[in-house]
Amino acid sequence: MGFLKAKGDIYKAAEDVDVGPNSNEFYLQANVKAPRMAGFLVKVFAWFLELPIFGSIMLYVLKRNNLIHKLVTFAELQESPLYVPLHNYEELVTGGKEEKEMKIVEYESPREQVGQALECIENIVPPKYSFSRWTILDYSTAYHSKQITPLKVVDRFLSAVQHSSTPSMQMSFFINFDTDDILRQATESTRRYHQGEPLSVLDGVPIAVKDEIDCMPYHTTGGTKWMHKVRRCKDDAECVKRLRSCGAILVGKTNMHELGAGTSGINPHYGTTRNPYNIGRIAGGSSSGSAAVVAAGLCPAALGVDGGGSVRMPAALCGVVGFKPSFGRVSHSGVLPLNWTVGMVGILAGTVEDALLVYAAITGPKSSDQSKITPPKLYFPLLKSPKPLPNIRLAKYGEWFNDCSDEIRVCCCQALTKLHDRYGWKTIEVTVPEIEVMRLAHYVTIGSECSTLIARELEKLNKEELGWDARVALPVYGSFSSQEYLNAQRIRNRQLQFHQRIFSKADVIVTPTTGVTAYTIQNDTLETGELDYINGAALVRYQIAGNFLGLPAITIPVGYDRSNLPIGLQFIGKPWDESLLIHIAFAMQELCISEYKKPEVFWDLLDK
Amino acid sequence: MGFLKAKGDIYKAAEDVDVGPNSNEFYLQANVKAPRMAGFLVKVFAWFLELPIFGSIMLYVLKRNNLIHKLVTFAELQESPLYVPLHNYEELVTGGKEEKEMKIVEYESPREQVGQALECIENIVPPKYSFSRWTILDYSTAYHSKQITPLKVVDRFLSAVQHSSTPSMQMSFFINFDTDDILRQATESTRRYHQGEPLSVLDGVPIAVKDEIDCMPYHTTGGTKWMHKVRRCKDDAECVKRLRSCGAILVGKTNMHELGAGTSGINPHYGTTRNPYNIGRIAGGSSSGSAAVVAAGLCPAALGVDGGGSVRMPAALCGVVGFKPSFGRVSHSGVLPLNWTVGMVGILAGTVEDALLVYAAITGPKSSDQSKITPPKLYFPLLKSPKPLPNIRLAKYGEWFNDCSDEIRVCCCQALTKLHDRYGWKTIEVTVPEIEVMRLAHYVTIGSECSTLIARELEKLNKEELGWDARVALPVYGSFSSQEYLNAQRIRNRQLQFHQRIFSKADVIVTPTTGVTAYTIQNDTLETGELDYINGAALVRYQIAGNFLGLPAITIPVGYDRSNLPIGLQFIGKPWDESLLIHIAFAMQELCISEYKKPEVFWDLLDK
Repeated sequence: MGFLKAKGDIYKAAEDVDVGPNSNEFYLQANVKAPRMAGFLVKVFAWFLELPIFGSIMLYVLKRNNLIHKLVTFAELQESPLYVPLHNYEELVTGGKEEKEMKIVEYESPREQVGQALECIENIVPPKYSFSRWTILDYSTAYHSKQITPLKVVDRFLSAVQHSSTPSMQMSFFINFDTDDILRQATESTRRYHQGEPLSVLDGVPIAVKDEIDCMPYHTTGGTKWMHKVRRCKDDAECVKRLRSCGAILVGKTNMHELGAGTSGINPHYGTTRNPYNIGRIAGGSSSGSAAVVAAGLCPAALGVDGGGSVRMPAALCGVVGFKPSFGRVSHSGVLPLNWTVGMVGILAGTVEDALLVYAAITGPKSSDQSKITPPKLYFPLLKSPKPLPNIRLAKYGEWFNDCSDEIRVCCCQALTKLHDRYGWKTIEVTVPEIEVMRLAHYVTIGSECSTLIARELEKLNKEELGWDARVALPVYGSFSSQEYLNAQRIRNRQLQFHQRIFSKADVIVTPTTGVTAYTIQNDTLETGELDYINGAALVRYQIAGNFLGLPAITIPVGYDRSNLPIGLQFIGKPWDESLLIHIAFAMQELCISEYKKPEVFWDLLDK
Repeated sequence: MGFLKAKGDIYKAAEDVDVGPNSNEFYLQANVKAPRMAGFLVKVFAWFLELPIFGSIMLYVLKRNNLIHKLVTFAELQESPLYVPLHNYEELVTGGKEEKEMKIVEYESPREQVGQALECIENIVPPKYSFSRWTILDYSTAYHSKQITPLKVVDRFLSAVQHSSTPSMQMSFFINFDTDDILRQATESTRRYHQGEPLSVLDGVPIAVKDEIDCMPYHTTGGTKWMHKVRRCKDDAECVKRLRSCGAILVGKTNMHELGAGTSGINPHYGTTRNPYNIGRIAGGSSSGSAAVVAAGLCPAALGVDGGGSVRMPAALCGVVGFKPSFGRVSHSGVLPLNWTVGMVGILAGTVEDALLVYAAITGPKSSDQSKITPPKLYFPLLKSPKPLPNIRLAKYGEWFNDCSDEIRVCCCQALTKLHDRYGWKTIEVTVPEIEVMRLAHYVTIGSECSTLIARELEKLNKEELGWDARVALPVYGSFSSQEYLNAQRIRNRQLQFHQRIFSKADVIVTPTTGVTAYTIQNDTLETGELDYINGAALVRYQIAGNFLGLPAITIPVGYDRSNLPIGLQFIGKPWDESLLIHIAFAMQELCISEYKKPEVFWDLLDK
């Protein structure tokens, strides 16, 4: 098809690209050439893509029109591929901050690590919600003081979940939960408190798990109707095992976008997770259920998996904290293998402190077969309200930062102003070059890896078992050449260099978390799913560096739009520097939490 | 093209594969489905492959018939990809041998490293050739004793090269050499000896460089007619710079297979390098000229590049030593970028000691942008003739070892018997599973990487500038999908595990170097090149682990077939364990060197 051949861009050497404030690098807005489609149109589109020859031509034209040919396939690059996000971490960790602000943690048992994290937050006066979204410490305190038992909490939890599934709500939080198993866990936890021997501050705390992570006694569906038939779940994932050893009650498998291959959380098989702030809106995805249950007060924290913003996007849309550690910090063992080099277990939580506690439980040096990375020493931030570190430098790329809805922009700018005014922190203007190129390269990467990983299963599959939007996504995922994959990895190398240079001047990069707030669930989407690449691009706009470069990133709620829909602000950290990132997010939270609004759909399980 | 879809093999988990002597793993012989083609047939084949749609179908059928679909594309694998040969070296280096047999070398200047290597061989009584193939030490001694000067040697060298180019010989050793530049270097070296200040034992020693490695004042053609027009050579490659700093005389750029994309050394642009042992036979490739000049006595050593046996194959066919260090031991800076993860600079030399001296000069910690590997400590073997290490364990996979011509098999077995009888070394029978799978996976890898690296240049190129066999190779190289590339990397992971287990039981793996000796150059090949995948497969049969897994490997001559064509024996070493490998090769050489035969075409530059 040489007659259609696009000319590729010629990239100058990475070291010659200016990442400073006056760079002449051009900010390219996502130029998505695909109309919104749902209902019958999606079916027709899928049928065409699945045709032998016509389908190949359509894929070719799609890739060309969406600039993949120009920016990736036929690009002229000088860099060699960087296949896995590797970080030369020694010089980066602690970010030059004084060690007295950090606690160096020896890798120990999950319970001991949680104990160490607890020491970091015990001395602070924790900032409080304006309503009853209870924290892990609230649960623990209530159990210790015998104000309530885990069994009672679980009772309330189960009736809340039942209520959420009634026809008038149809929240679709869970794909699977086992009442008996949950009650059994709660009984044991209650007994432990009775004997005065709780396992940790997490004992008896309900925690939900995205259905992409193995957790006994459930199947792992990955949001599909078929995955669990070809891949048996035989054991807890490493991260789940660690939470269980701390006494957490694992309350079921949360809903997600099918195969994690979308950002809306619209799932034709298990229902569309609805946003607790407005049940007519999406929860975001792919970790839609995990974000929604935390927002609705059902769990103080939940696990998700973030391969392209899948933890941070729904967290922002549902008004909770979403935290994705550095690539390699959490074992990938027992997580559904949907990619090798971009996905990471992440945490959804009501507060930054709770994200830290769960992070402390699940992080550890168990070697993941996904990566040859050995994580460096672990640091936890010593959170000492109200005295955050001085002289934090926040990198901001104005054109990118501003490429979102007006309300998000205003809200996020106000949040930054608070940081300047209250803590004297500085914003440094930078340029992040080739953001749209990075998005496409990441798409080629995650698509190629996902398609390779599930190719054998797909062959055996009756196509009818797939949702319609997955039937569109998968042919595109499988259409990439080795050259496209390799050029994507060369772009990864460039971007890592750009980011390393930005981090030599700043402590974190700050962005809005998403370009839009939760949008409306239209009626035509519920059966077929929806192809809305324009809203999709606005959602992932600020996500990609966290995955493609394996950087830690955190989103925290900083306000609401006119429709009372939450807005998130994101901090992207230096490799391995979770400690500083959490410190900064906590400082931001202190300035916002008292104004947090209660969702439309909400349960108070402690009922204090 | 689903109607043509091949069923993929289902691989069991790598840890369940038995690498022991009684394994039920099946040895699959290379089943090449492609007839030998040359002359007009090659042209027709290239034309068809270049057709837009028919070409794609032909490529599909070719890949299916040659088992790429069955063994790679549609294979069912459990391993994650290993993109770059990474080695957990700490436990492997020194192979448990006592340190008194090794010299730990601090990375220093090339001259100092050469000095350290010299100490390792100075105390030995060097084994001697039965004819006058002089070693580096012979040159150095002759210069020191004023028996001859570098200028005189270079005079003889230049007239020999002139002689080799006469119509009756047409050896096609060099693509480029500059008489003035060579004389200038020789004059300076002569002056240094006159002043009693030679730079190192390499001072004044003629060393040739494959035309894939940058060396001033020459272009770097990569065996093509066009590469030097699109990529300017601006500086010496790092390895050349190091040799120059030791005083070596760089005597020109040797001939090679076009783009390194073949094993015969038949080059339609610069003539076919002929084998000094029989000028009607190929020299092997792709480092054909570098092997031939060493064999013919023109240089004691030369540099090559080995991406799929390209140093070891021509070395074996031309009866010299070929040494490929571990991936990452020698900087790739200034080597023509034709792949990222399989190629390595290698050394062709008359003796093992000379390979060690050149290795000492070129190895060093300069970070190569090709790899994120930091080489571990450097060791040189203390060669103490005639007392080699006891208890060396040689791993041998009988079925594989025997898959070569009868004469090679007999000769290589006799060599092993000598090692048993003289040193008491043991052969351990092992199974190397999936060798043919590894060959295909390596082919997918090197093809994809090469095609990506030169894609932009090829677009701009007039096809007429390419040789006909390259015009067949390049469409195949460019035909792989991201899934094929990723599955190839999963196969790399499996193979590394297999080899790690074999190396837990043995010190080196021993094989013949090639499955055939130098075959006849047919008249129809000289203009179009030749497609002879059957001989090609026999040549590369024992090469791939060295490249795909980045293992060090060395070939040394152990005898001759009935036509007086050389036969090589190969030792494949543990990652980073070059020291033991050289020790073993030296011990083998001691038992063979006195029977080495003089080539048909030979010059004695010292003329002692």
